[in-house]
Amino acid sequence: MTENVTRAGTGYQDAIRNNVWMHMAPHQSLFNGGEAPIITRGEGHHIFDDKGNKYLDGLAGLFTVQVGHGREEIAKAMYDQALKLPFMPLWSFAHPQAIEVSERLASYAPGDLNRVFLTSGGGDSVESAMKLAKNYFKITGKPGKHKIISRATAYHGTPHGALSVTSLPDLREQFAPLVPGAIKVPNTNFYRSPQPYAHDEKAFGRWAADRIAEAIEFEGADSVAAVFLEPVQNSGGCFPPPPGYFDRVREICDEYDVLMVSDETICAYGRIGDMFACNDFGYVPDIITSAKGITSGYAPLGAMVASDRLFEPFGPGGEETFYHGYTFGGHPVACAAAMANFDVFEKEKLNDHVHENAAAFKFTLEKLKDLPIVGDVRGEGFFYGIELVKDRDTKESFTEEESERILKNFVSAKMYENGLYCRADDRGDPVIQLSPPLTVGQKEFDEMEQIIRGVLSEAWTKL
Amino acid sequence: MTENVTRAGTGYQDAIRNNVWMHMAPHQSLFNGGEAPIITRGEGHHIFDDKGNKYLDGLAGLFTVQVGHGREEIAKAMYDQALKLPFMPLWSFAHPQAIEVSERLASYAPGDLNRVFLTSGGGDSVESAMKLAKNYFKITGKPGKHKIISRATAYHGTPHGALSVTSLPDLREQFAPLVPGAIKVPNTNFYRSPQPYAHDEKAFGRWAADRIAEAIEFEGADSVAAVFLEPVQNSGGCFPPPPGYFDRVREICDEYDVLMVSDETICAYGRIGDMFACNDFGYVPDIITSAKGITSGYAPLGAMVASDRLFEPFGPGGEETFYHGYTFGGHPVACAAAMANFDVFEKEKLNDHVHENAAAFKFTLEKLKDLPIVGDVRGEGFFYGIELVKDRDTKESFTEEESERILKNFVSAKMYENGLYCRADDRGDPVIQLSPPLTVGQKEFDEMEQIIRGVLSEAWTKL
Repeated sequence: MTENVTRAGTGYQDAIRNNVWMHMAPHQSLFNGGEAPIITRGEGHHIFDDKGNKYLDGLAGLFTVQVGHGREEIAKAMYDQALKLPFMPLWSFAHPQAIEVSERLASYAPGDLNRVFLTSGGGDSVESAMKLAKNYFKITGKPGKHKIISRATAYHGTPHGALSVTSLPDLREQFAPLVPGAIKVPNTNFYRSPQPYAHDEKAFGRWAADRIAEAIEFEGADSVAAVFLEPVQNSGGCFPPPPGYFDRVREICDEYDVLMVSDETICAYGRIGDMFACNDFGYVPDIITSAKGITSGYAPLGAMVASDRLFEPFGPGGEETFYHGYTFGGHPVACAAAMANFDVFEKEKLNDHVHENAAAFKFTLEKLKDLPIVGDVRGEGFFYGIELVKDRDTKESFTEEESERILKNFVSAKMYENGLYCRADDRGDPVIQLSPPLTVGQKEFDEMEQIIRGVLSEAWTKL
Repeated sequence: MTENVTRAGTGYQDAIRNNVWMHMAPHQSLFNGGEAPIITRGEGHHIFDDKGNKYLDGLAGLFTVQVGHGREEIAKAMYDQALKLPFMPLWSFAHPQAIEVSERLASYAPGDLNRVFLTSGGGDSVESAMKLAKNYFKITGKPGKHKIISRATAYHGTPHGALSVTSLPDLREQFAPLVPGAIKVPNTNFYRSPQPYAHDEKAFGRWAADRIAEAIEFEGADSVAAVFLEPVQNSGGCFPPPPGYFDRVREICDEYDVLMVSDETICAYGRIGDMFACNDFGYVPDIITSAKGITSGYAPLGAMVASDRLFEPFGPGGEETFYHGYTFGGHPVACAAAMANFDVFEKEKLNDHVHENAAAFKFTLEKLKDLPIVGDVRGEGFFYGIELVKDRDTKESFTEEESERILKNFVSAKMYENGLYCRADDRGDPVIQLSPPLTVGQKEFDEMEQIIRGVLSEAWTKL
């Protein structure tokens, strides 16, 4: 660490100010005496900054570092692969690492989802699924089917196609025009469900699913290619599916011949408990998109897993070619990292650990409900959102000013100061997002609860 | 290698058939007794398949492996970084590896191109530049400027935005609708330039550049945000810029306030000789997009480098935030690979090597002009295209059937069989693409020339 500390003293902040364009980040404070936090080291479920401070990694980097930091077996697999074959594209060629990862992902996926198209990230996986959906219908006699349905406040990535499907107007409008034909429907925010369903989760789920059927009818089934859904929707504030929701969505998709795409960029690879979260909720989509946890973030990789039916015209049953690809998709070193990552999952039975401890994690976080600022605690597996409110009875949310002042400037900074790296998000209503490495247990559940309790108690006094 | 050979005997091909969706690849032959080539190992500028065959890597993977395969210092840097901090996003945070790469890229870039937005690949870099161009004009009083101009047969990537800018109808139409407002102009294919300019490269360059001005006038300057150009355009067949071309493009961009984007996904990092190819040709763009050679392909990484002017409203001079980002953009292990890669460049003076040997490479390939099937040999640095024709006098090209039968099924397969991995491409007129690791010299130039000579001589007899 010495070299970092030294370097920090002589100009990392200047270098950031002069040359680094951070992601999704306001930069102005850096020019008014502010500093960007610099993370230099990770160890298990902790990260360290350039000043030697230690943080519990409550976000697994960005819903990514499932097995924790510093895994020698993954680093070693990457080293060996980089020495043996550091790069080879999958453009009409193959390499053992992509073959092995593809086989393994197909074995994890439900139903006949056997066709693995490797990418280099979640946005790429979503782009690939959009392109496949449109291409498939164009060559199978339904060329008008090109529109994509997704849910309010959902995030599906930032390339132009994925961004069109992303339902956050603030992320989209400054980049217009995007891809036409992106249709939005309600999500499964039961906490703020319409009055008639406020006390009946199942009825709410039926209503929310039926809004997809309604959108298809409004647009015309002949114009709709796919619906994109996360198993548990992250953006907006961690929305699990109500009972029966996905069964009904599956029914609707079958009825209108619309592809059901399970965007598991966040939820796959043990986040909910299974390798693919659709298995946790018992539905079989037509396509799964994933990334992040596939390598626990040790290397950029993503995957689109599609059903045999969708491959058929591009394979033995047809004469078509799917003209799509990424130079770095299915990168050999990233695939080697994924295989070593999956080995850790299996050796340490991480999915069992999540299944067995999810209830305790939730129970621990639910203690926070005694704080007046906590409106709701929701989530599944090792993935939770804590929604903040001004009034628990009326569920009144923060104003924009309060969200900026309390959530972003106070809660977020204070959590970090107190040793918890997590995310305070107001892309929908204000929430604290938790998604730690899958290796944590009761000790860390308690630690998170305690830090959050302290910060939120103080935040309440500032409202 | 033993395990691969063993595995190959017991089912890699079956696994590909069942689970692997290759990129940009027809799969039908796999179900009719065909096999996919499987590359298992790389060493310097050679690659090896699962049967033990050795190939000269004439394409550097895919314009990527600049320093060659098996570099222990890069593998070691990746290993160390994966152990120390395998992942951290740049979302309002920074890590030393991203800071150091950003500083170094800014130092390589011309003019005031000091703002480095790290991505995870070329498509991402292009998407980022498109989004920045649109966002910049929206917040600086010219909100109507959103259209993007690019050149005929150019390839800029496959996500929806980048694909709109890509000028290959066959890659686009099956994925419609794409992003509106993508306008096309002629490229700098001097070999097939319009009659009046057929013997005057400078006049041709002026004409080609002026077509950009014309397109801006046709569309209305208030609606055009940027023009994307590769320093040497790859797709279509390796087109260097005519003398004066980029000076005139720069003039036009200044006149109409249109951003000039130098897409150096292929041409940067020594491919032409300098770290950025705009330096080789003496122009200063507003944005450089890059990827591939930035790590020599050892890990997925990309970069958009923008001018201080474009950062201004997002930095000290404004109140805006660029709401764009990638989880894997500026990945710490990939950044560590990039730093080690650049160290190799400097230690071994690879750019000097390219500058000093480019003429010899070209001279060697030009010997092929004595073959009646070779219409043109063109390129710069270590990047060449050999265009095939049926008649050198009339420049008559292959029919679609001949392209399929001769170029794809014979030339491509035979080169590989004879030990040269390169690319036979017919996205424009039929060409053989060469882009070897930057470590090759006269011995390999000769080897390539000899293999190509043999294959093309035989191809001629099959026309």
